[in-house]
Amino acid sequence: MRMYDLIEKKKYGEELTKEELEYIINGYVDGSIPDYQMSAWLMAVYFKGMTSRELTDMTITMAHSGDMVDLSAIEGIKIDKHSTGGVGDKTTLIITPMVAACGVKVAKMSGRGLGHTGGTVDKLESIEGYQTALDRQRFYEIVNTVGMSVIGQSGNLAPADKKLYALRDVTGTVDSIPLIASSIMSKKLAAGSDSILLDVTTGSGAFIEEFDKSIELAKTMVSIGEGAGRETVALLTNMDEPLGYAIGNTMEVQEAIETMKGNGPADLVEVCVALAGDMLYLAKKGTLEECREMATKTLTDGSAFERFKKMVAAQGGRCDVLEDTSLFGEAPYQMELLAKKSGYVQHMNAKECGIASMLLGAGRETKEDVIDMKAGILLKKKTTDAVKEGEVLAILYSSDENRLQTAADKLEAAYEIGDSKVAPLQMIQGRITKKDI
Amino acid sequence: MRMYDLIEKKKYGEELTKEELEYIINGYVDGSIPDYQMSAWLMAVYFKGMTSRELTDMTITMAHSGDMVDLSAIEGIKIDKHSTGGVGDKTTLIITPMVAACGVKVAKMSGRGLGHTGGTVDKLESIEGYQTALDRQRFYEIVNTVGMSVIGQSGNLAPADKKLYALRDVTGTVDSIPLIASSIMSKKLAAGSDSILLDVTTGSGAFIEEFDKSIELAKTMVSIGEGAGRETVALLTNMDEPLGYAIGNTMEVQEAIETMKGNGPADLVEVCVALAGDMLYLAKKGTLEECREMATKTLTDGSAFERFKKMVAAQGGRCDVLEDTSLFGEAPYQMELLAKKSGYVQHMNAKECGIASMLLGAGRETKEDVIDMKAGILLKKKTTDAVKEGEVLAILYSSDENRLQTAADKLEAAYEIGDSKVAPLQMIQGRITKKDI
Repeated sequence: MRMYDLIEKKKYGEELTKEELEYIINGYVDGSIPDYQMSAWLMAVYFKGMTSRELTDMTITMAHSGDMVDLSAIEGIKIDKHSTGGVGDKTTLIITPMVAACGVKVAKMSGRGLGHTGGTVDKLESIEGYQTALDRQRFYEIVNTVGMSVIGQSGNLAPADKKLYALRDVTGTVDSIPLIASSIMSKKLAAGSDSILLDVTTGSGAFIEEFDKSIELAKTMVSIGEGAGRETVALLTNMDEPLGYAIGNTMEVQEAIETMKGNGPADLVEVCVALAGDMLYLAKKGTLEECREMATKTLTDGSAFERFKKMVAAQGGRCDVLEDTSLFGEAPYQMELLAKKSGYVQHMNAKECGIASMLLGAGRETKEDVIDMKAGILLKKKTTDAVKEGEVLAILYSSDENRLQTAADKLEAAYEIGDSKVAPLQMIQGRITKKDI
Repeated sequence: MRMYDLIEKKKYGEELTKEELEYIINGYVDGSIPDYQMSAWLMAVYFKGMTSRELTDMTITMAHSGDMVDLSAIEGIKIDKHSTGGVGDKTTLIITPMVAACGVKVAKMSGRGLGHTGGTVDKLESIEGYQTALDRQRFYEIVNTVGMSVIGQSGNLAPADKKLYALRDVTGTVDSIPLIASSIMSKKLAAGSDSILLDVTTGSGAFIEEFDKSIELAKTMVSIGEGAGRETVALLTNMDEPLGYAIGNTMEVQEAIETMKGNGPADLVEVCVALAGDMLYLAKKGTLEECREMATKTLTDGSAFERFKKMVAAQGGRCDVLEDTSLFGEAPYQMELLAKKSGYVQHMNAKECGIASMLLGAGRETKEDVIDMKAGILLKKKTTDAVKEGEVLAILYSSDENRLQTAADKLEAAYEIGDSKVAPLQMIQGRITKKDI
């Protein structure tokens, strides 16, 4: 077998065999296939796509390029959840305890943020003392005793994806649906759960903004998951404006806690109930309707919050801040963004809001940047809201006074204010299961 | 400027500016753009193509990446000629003296053969003593005194193309019309002639077999040449069967000499007259018809042969073999390929004939292979010829007896014999000038 021939085959739109895809992925990982051949092949994939069969075979090979996590030490059906990312997206913090409160164990490995999107691990680290790096044994213990644990990705998970992604990142081959799908799913397959719930965000703050492409990504990932023998469901959730009102690590944890206490904003609650409901459904806890009802109840009866507190305690985090979130404190420098005219908020560009938050210090422009945990944005007005000239649209927070004005200008540009009230956003825009692919 | 953005731009089908193409080519030559970005960009070019403007700008940049040959030491209009290669294609040996005999000076730098196609420099080296490596000064002297000189490519001609071609060769980006066209034309622009005649071969023995694609290549090259300010004409010549009857270095020189003596096979003569005629036309020697008549005359009055002998003498070659070509001698081992059935030759696969000749030792499978100058094939039957069972189709020659049978099997498979006589091949299949692009 020669990589040259496999580049040609893909270039001419022919289907590659399982053995050929294994040769490509394993050869790239072991260094026998050079970057310049791999990047040519990836560009050919960009133009010619991949069949479901090819993608499943390739993704399984990518998953097996490193550790395959064994969750058998944890009892019951294990459900994993992945979000394609967004702005103000703190759902993992909320739905993990919601699902655990219903008796389904969740062993969750999360990532860090980059660019305009945040990461769950960063957010949890705004809780003083919280350990996101645990050894595998302790992780399983906490899941078995508390019912859940959220830690950072550890071990050598899908190194093929890591190497491929680094190459795609510099060769213009990131925005390919099959390559995005295989990248995400290789890590999910390696993470060892029985079933997978995918939160595919769509709209201005999502990694993929166009609805049609989001649907395509959802279908592609469900196809890979099912092809690899894991029950997989994808929800398409609206990320056309930030989720909830808080953007930035500490502030998002505060909003998540308030949501678990039953005081969450409507859009965030709706998305969390849908996601948690589907996780419970995948865990065979009842019909979808019953599962959503169970999920809703965990936010009103305090059971989700109880689980969250137990996990924070088990992972060494400070617990008094959970009861009284004002103890988190806030950033020393603040600036109010005022409306320049009266009217109604027509639209908010979520990506621009995310970039404004990053500019305040809440996110990373490059992997090496250090996060300012208390930096971020508290929105006061969102789409459909009426606003008067001079009224506060949002408050910006930072530990660096010099960052406020640039971020405020960016955020202001994200707001579109017009004369007539617009219809509220539909939060759940689709649901893809095996029967849809 | 970042290569990443230029990959994306080409990927999305946008036109690159002159400055952007200079950045890409110069950056690749100086090593600041890595192979893996260049190969991704080349694959994007494969799928999205290039505009005439882009191609001209890129090709000029490639030409200027190394030496630009200055032919001003040679008087008159200088015409270069390039063939996209073929089997039994000894036209350069014949048309250079034809043109020189009509008073147009030709300073020709030729290449070596690889794979199923031969190279003019290899062929000339079958004449004992003939020097293909001359310094620039001596080269110009011979052109000025004899009227012509054929040497090997020397100096640092279009190193950008050399580096790009090596990458394309291992990344599946060879068969792209714009990339082929810019590769050929970059060297032609650097070689310093005033006008360029392109011999674009088409059919089973050509680098590009399909007629439509050959036309596209011809138009693309003419467009680049004219865009760069050089008058450029392309002839599409038939390479669906070998040109003439001889394949292999010494035997092709013998056939070329016989042709200059007025005893050439009809197909070879027709192609040579067309090519030489167009070179004379580019040199403003008259109407195309007049130029073809002048060219024809050089084969009947012995003037082309006179020029050829003078050049061989000037470049140190043995001259008695030119007068009596039997003095070349022949390979020690020979095998006759006999017809297994009676009928008419319907078609010959020229590429397979070329490979059979290479297997005999007449060509190189890799650049390092040493050529057996006397190896090759003498065809006795070609398309349209009647053949009887047991009659000789061709004679194979080699200095290695063990090579004969494999080559004979290959050659036999190239012959297609059927019941009815077929129409003769049309040798000149098209002519592309500025007005056709």
